[in-house]
Amino acid sequence: MDRDEQEIRQLVATWMSATQAGDVDKVLSLMSEDAIFLVAGQPVMRKADFAAAARAQAQGNAPRFSGTSDIQEVRILGDWAFMWSRLKVVVTPPGGAKTITRAGHTLTILKKDSGKWVLARDANMLAPVPDDAG
Amino acid sequence: MDRDEQEIRQLVATWMSATQAGDVDKVLSLMSEDAIFLVAGQPVMRKADFAAAARAQAQGNAPRFSGTSDIQEVRILGDWAFMWSRLKVVVTPPGGAKTITRAGHTLTILKKDSGKWVLARDANMLAPVPDDAG
Repeated sequence: MDRDEQEIRQLVATWMSATQAGDVDKVLSLMSEDAIFLVAGQPVMRKADFAAAARAQAQGNAPRFSGTSDIQEVRILGDWAFMWSRLKVVVTPPGGAKTITRAGHTLTILKKDSGKWVLARDANMLAPVPDDAG
Repeated sequence: MDRDEQEIRQLVATWMSATQAGDVDKVLSLMSEDAIFLVAGQPVMRKADFAAAARAQAQGNAPRFSGTSDIQEVRILGDWAFMWSRLKVVVTPPGGAKTITRAGHTLTILKKDSGKWVLARDANMLAPVPDDAG
């Protein structure tokens, strides 16, 4: 595995742990200024939208997130790369409500920005998974 | 607009018209052998799966498809490219049943295969649109 692929895998691991820790600034540092998030049934979400949603979610009685990303392919194209993964996210609402599990694929475009890989475009195809306790 | 981007836009137009015409072989010629289709709530679909599903759908009393693709970005990365689009597909079932409209974004990876652009990875985030007659 080459160094770029290692750095991209580390980016994914950092993204997951920062999300789990509710560290919004850290997550925002892992994406480009022009990052775009595409999700079924929703308008395009840009970095400022992501930041606002993440900060709102991290306030007060925040849900807890945990997840696993199973990377299927990483391909480096110079200073750009793409990756697709199987992602599973478990959301635990505050106050003991039932966990919600969502799973599915992501297709992600990354770019090297001043020598550092960041997420640039992300397609999220997660769908609810039938109750698996939690 | 450079020549590669023009060719990719033409590929999208050909894909839409071939799908509308039920020309499965044509659509298959527009994707790489290792093409991968990612859709929410479904397993990974490879070229053989796509072919089987498209041929089954084109048999007998086939539904009719029409659609529009509004390309938001095409970026050429040497012999690879990525593109994201807003896609709207209207499916007309046989026998006068009500049309079904699905709309949303796609994020697509393309590659140049022997000098010809083909679709290589596709993330489809289409979701049903509330009834718009048809």
